[in-house]
Amino acid sequence: MNNPVTVEVTRGQLVESRHRGLAVVVDAEGQVIFSAGDIDAAIFPRSACKAMQALPLVESGAADAFGFGNRELALACASHSGEPEHVAAAAAMLKAAGRSEIDLECGAHWSFDQATIIAQARSLDQPSALHNNCSGKHSGFICTCVHMGEDPKGYSTYDHPLQQSIRAIMEDLTGAALGPDNCGTDGCSIPTYAVPLKGLAHGFAKLGMGQGLAPIRAAAARRLIEACMAEPFYVAGTKRFCTKLMQVAPGRIFAKTGAEGVFCALLPEKGLSFAVKAEDGATRAAEAMIAALLARHFEADTEEHAALMRLAHHGMRNWNGIEVGQVRVTDVLFG
Amino acid sequence: MNNPVTVEVTRGQLVESRHRGLAVVVDAEGQVIFSAGDIDAAIFPRSACKAMQALPLVESGAADAFGFGNRELALACASHSGEPEHVAAAAAMLKAAGRSEIDLECGAHWSFDQATIIAQARSLDQPSALHNNCSGKHSGFICTCVHMGEDPKGYSTYDHPLQQSIRAIMEDLTGAALGPDNCGTDGCSIPTYAVPLKGLAHGFAKLGMGQGLAPIRAAAARRLIEACMAEPFYVAGTKRFCTKLMQVAPGRIFAKTGAEGVFCALLPEKGLSFAVKAEDGATRAAEAMIAALLARHFEADTEEHAALMRLAHHGMRNWNGIEVGQVRVTDVLFG
Repeated sequence: MNNPVTVEVTRGQLVESRHRGLAVVVDAEGQVIFSAGDIDAAIFPRSACKAMQALPLVESGAADAFGFGNRELALACASHSGEPEHVAAAAAMLKAAGRSEIDLECGAHWSFDQATIIAQARSLDQPSALHNNCSGKHSGFICTCVHMGEDPKGYSTYDHPLQQSIRAIMEDLTGAALGPDNCGTDGCSIPTYAVPLKGLAHGFAKLGMGQGLAPIRAAAARRLIEACMAEPFYVAGTKRFCTKLMQVAPGRIFAKTGAEGVFCALLPEKGLSFAVKAEDGATRAAEAMIAALLARHFEADTEEHAALMRLAHHGMRNWNGIEVGQVRVTDVLFG
Repeated sequence: MNNPVTVEVTRGQLVESRHRGLAVVVDAEGQVIFSAGDIDAAIFPRSACKAMQALPLVESGAADAFGFGNRELALACASHSGEPEHVAAAAAMLKAAGRSEIDLECGAHWSFDQATIIAQARSLDQPSALHNNCSGKHSGFICTCVHMGEDPKGYSTYDHPLQQSIRAIMEDLTGAALGPDNCGTDGCSIPTYAVPLKGLAHGFAKLGMGQGLAPIRAAAARRLIEACMAEPFYVAGTKRFCTKLMQVAPGRIFAKTGAEGVFCALLPEKGLSFAVKAEDGATRAAEAMIAALLARHFEADTEEHAALMRLAHHGMRNWNGIEVGQVRVTDVLFG
């Protein structure tokens, strides 16, 4: 099917570029209450599902054994900007388990954030694996292995016991059968599994509201989601969209992006779960889509609604600060 | 109409993201010899048409008066990375006209190129307008005004005599009527005009092959195109796609990208002109599309064909250097 145009980018009086997308909102039981596009299509959640991948850290008792609080749990669910606080927290997690950055298997990269890469260039010769946006997740993986008595070496590979347990968790949450046929390799080298967008949204519904999960898993999931909502800076960073979304309504919105235009979100108090994917993989489209869908569930005269609509519909300025166009969500998402 | 999927991005065995696009190839007279998607749709060429915007610099005699050679003319058509050679050449152009960076109206920004922004962060407090990717074009604008006896102040605005003459040139080349209704403001603050993709390709055909142009304009156009082909580093920079495309077949391929997924190219020896636009504005899609279209016009067993196909279909590696997927052009562009 042709996915609908969900986001337009304008310049002057004209539409310059168009993004198509798929989007779904489900309730706590996974019932679809809104959809656009082919929500049965399998998509790679990429980093959007890091909170799912962090469940073993809590379920195993590793997080408690190492004394991890909200910041460490948020970082385990993060795609962070590699700011000094993120790097220090990841290093501290590894140290708590008697390990170090040598054990990280995520690879190294400079920050994607302009202000941060400039600061890094001025203070570092090269970035280390601690600066990788996934270093918190990987530190959580290593801590889990150490606590479980597993050798962390190879923790990022398909057959390692940790990835086997994550695969089982992803199947439990999303209802999809996962294996080599729907497996890809993520940017940080761990397996990523393509699942229907609807299933991904249902998985987040379980994560946030707990229906259909064993009590220990429901409790671990709730703890991770609450940690992210309590420490949104540690989930992403300065001026980052995930952080801004969660700061709109502290403790009430959970949101996490993934590469190639994925965004998932929760409104636990309303029992709602959201998942979107830009067909073309564009981050700017996924951001506008998720903000618009969230906005629909706040009263129109509230500050939260206004703040979310500013994230959904926003001007684009050029190097001289002149507004040259806008990113705006189409009526498809307001139907 | 629904533009076709022209580029797929894969991960593992699956397609992760899809780009739709429009593409056209015309001959020297502007006759369409290949098309995909809605080629009558008006698109903003953005920086792809910088060689058109540089015509007054040559036609006015300014380039000769200031002793500009291939490097300066290439830089006047460039979206460069702000590498030291680009910055020095733009400064020298301004100095030749008795002006300086104070006169530039393009605004300042850090380089978009990772290696360059790291080097800039280590050597600069802040970037200046000379580091703006458009500083060569703007320096050419200022040189033109000075040579013509016009006050350069406000040269970037819609009503300035320079922009009026560029508007007339764009109408001559593309056959489109241009005015406030199809005008937007570009990243560097000058007017940009939406024209049908087919007209943009015809405009480049005139630029490269000269049919339908007054002799002085045809000669000026040919000189600019040859300058870009002779000095491809000055059109973009290290590892940049325009530079790489032109290095595939030195002196035989002209190519220039524009923001929001635009690419134009010429094969003057074959009398062919190419223009593509990714519907969603994605650079990676426009790059793959233009490389594939160019490749079709080289014999299958040549080095040039192989090099262009490597730019059209290429693997994507993660932070550990593992190939995780591919960018590949669909059969739509090989029909």
